[in-house]
Amino acid sequence: MIDALVARTGQPTTTLLGPGDDCAIVAAADGRVVATVDVLVDGVHFRTDWASGEQIGRRAALASMADVAAMGATPTALLVGLCAPAETPTDLVMDIGRGLDAEASKVGAGIVGGDITRSTVLTISVTVLGDLAGREPVRRSGARVGDVVAVVGRLGWAAAGLAVLSRGFRSPAALVGSYRVPEPPIEQGVVAALAGATSMIDVSDGLIADLGHLADESGVAIEVATRVVPVHARLTEVASALGRDPMEWAMTGGDDHALAATFPDKASVPADWTPIGMVREGSGIVVDGQPWTGTGGWDHFGSGG
Amino acid sequence: MIDALVARTGQPTTTLLGPGDDCAIVAAADGRVVATVDVLVDGVHFRTDWASGEQIGRRAALASMADVAAMGATPTALLVGLCAPAETPTDLVMDIGRGLDAEASKVGAGIVGGDITRSTVLTISVTVLGDLAGREPVRRSGARVGDVVAVVGRLGWAAAGLAVLSRGFRSPAALVGSYRVPEPPIEQGVVAALAGATSMIDVSDGLIADLGHLADESGVAIEVATRVVPVHARLTEVASALGRDPMEWAMTGGDDHALAATFPDKASVPADWTPIGMVREGSGIVVDGQPWTGTGGWDHFGSGG
Repeated sequence: MIDALVARTGQPTTTLLGPGDDCAIVAAADGRVVATVDVLVDGVHFRTDWASGEQIGRRAALASMADVAAMGATPTALLVGLCAPAETPTDLVMDIGRGLDAEASKVGAGIVGGDITRSTVLTISVTVLGDLAGREPVRRSGARVGDVVAVVGRLGWAAAGLAVLSRGFRSPAALVGSYRVPEPPIEQGVVAALAGATSMIDVSDGLIADLGHLADESGVAIEVATRVVPVHARLTEVASALGRDPMEWAMTGGDDHALAATFPDKASVPADWTPIGMVREGSGIVVDGQPWTGTGGWDHFGSGG
Repeated sequence: MIDALVARTGQPTTTLLGPGDDCAIVAAADGRVVATVDVLVDGVHFRTDWASGEQIGRRAALASMADVAAMGATPTALLVGLCAPAETPTDLVMDIGRGLDAEASKVGAGIVGGDITRSTVLTISVTVLGDLAGREPVRRSGARVGDVVAVVGRLGWAAAGLAVLSRGFRSPAALVGSYRVPEPPIEQGVVAALAGATSMIDVSDGLIADLGHLADESGVAIEVATRVVPVHARLTEVASALGRDPMEWAMTGGDDHALAATFPDKASVPADWTPIGMVREGSGIVVDGQPWTGTGGWDHFGSGG
């Protein structure tokens, strides 16, 4: 089974020693290595009846790789810890491995190691190593007053997809697909770093929540104007059908792993990014001029509730 | 909870960026990083009624760090993925973090990142990064005909401890303690590398099984003489009391994470290591002149069964 998970054809040149020994060895040419770990649990982060093994594997790889992107780094290697119940079909494990490998190889990373063990619940831990190629990391704490806040990637798609699935529907396919497998703009992390991003984070908890982390760590306030927050027509349509507010999904929905960053000025915001606000003195998140308190959720926000 | 797991006082100088951002950054001065992951699951690898949280954390750290040692490297950083049921006491999580930190800091490694999530079963994934300090890694595949096979660390202690616990006893404390927290000779990995070890592995599946990996990967046979395999007096005593063969524990017991390695000659075997055999032409493991087939287990070995 462990072979199914890690034995793939071809490793990138950064893999100096692949799976099969006590450890892997990965090149870290600039003398530093970026590292992060995420764990996904069946019934909490995914459902095997809502997603295929390959989709689950892809999602697991992407969730961790988005963290590496958010430092302005490039993923180089993945290490996978898989816990599976005894009755797990070998095909499902193979499919998870295939999904992990598909997304890793897309960005030039190798699956260099793994551990597989029995458990009562299907659990996938993905460690990703990354390379800064000599650049300084883009941290959460670097936003400065006057910076422009911008985003790239999908906002609210996964949340909309989950809402659709929860109501028993299977379409629109694009939204359901976004819940099953996000499309984080991994390569935009380096683009932002090269453009001079002062702070960056991947949107895993929701735009407001994650901008809140940037604001807290940087000691600033972040103002967002909803009129410029990208809300795709698909979200608007589905929200209308389900009686929901698409802006709620865009502002509070997690798991799309969009990137949010701050840049010194409008001219430095890269082409694919959308400016949505400004960094100001103060603290917390201000949406359309109103401080976000987090109490009562989006429904009550702005209505005095 | 995640703070309990990773927020410790002090990081080693190799931790360039500790927990709290999207990723950690760890120094990799020689341009390479050694990496491994192990996952421990409640009821499979540990039992919360047989070990404290601190013991579980220490064991989780040591199991992964022994793999780094077996490459001839020094652990520099740990990333921890913890899955815990909703009813898990915060104290248990704190204790696991304390145990991880205790063993990591002993060898100068930092806990640089973590993820904590809900699950139905307590699960700990530990990724360890390591540094080769310019040396070549000691792989499983380098054993050559004529090399001396040697071991360092405990053999069979954890298996004896498990046998004791399984019979409802709690002593001898040293053996039970070895099952709860192994004492792998982490620092001996570098010692072996500097002494010119040609191949190395950590004994996690049992001495015969893990020497089998060295033999297979190196394309050689390994001969072991049981009369020189170290069997501690405590094992002999307990085996006698339980009607067991202490040599079975020493030869087949796992989880002590002793190190087994091959050296070019007897003179190059480091002081703390015990020579137990030789590398020969052929394949597989030969114990006291008889090929080990693995069928029937130790009981039937040598009795024609």
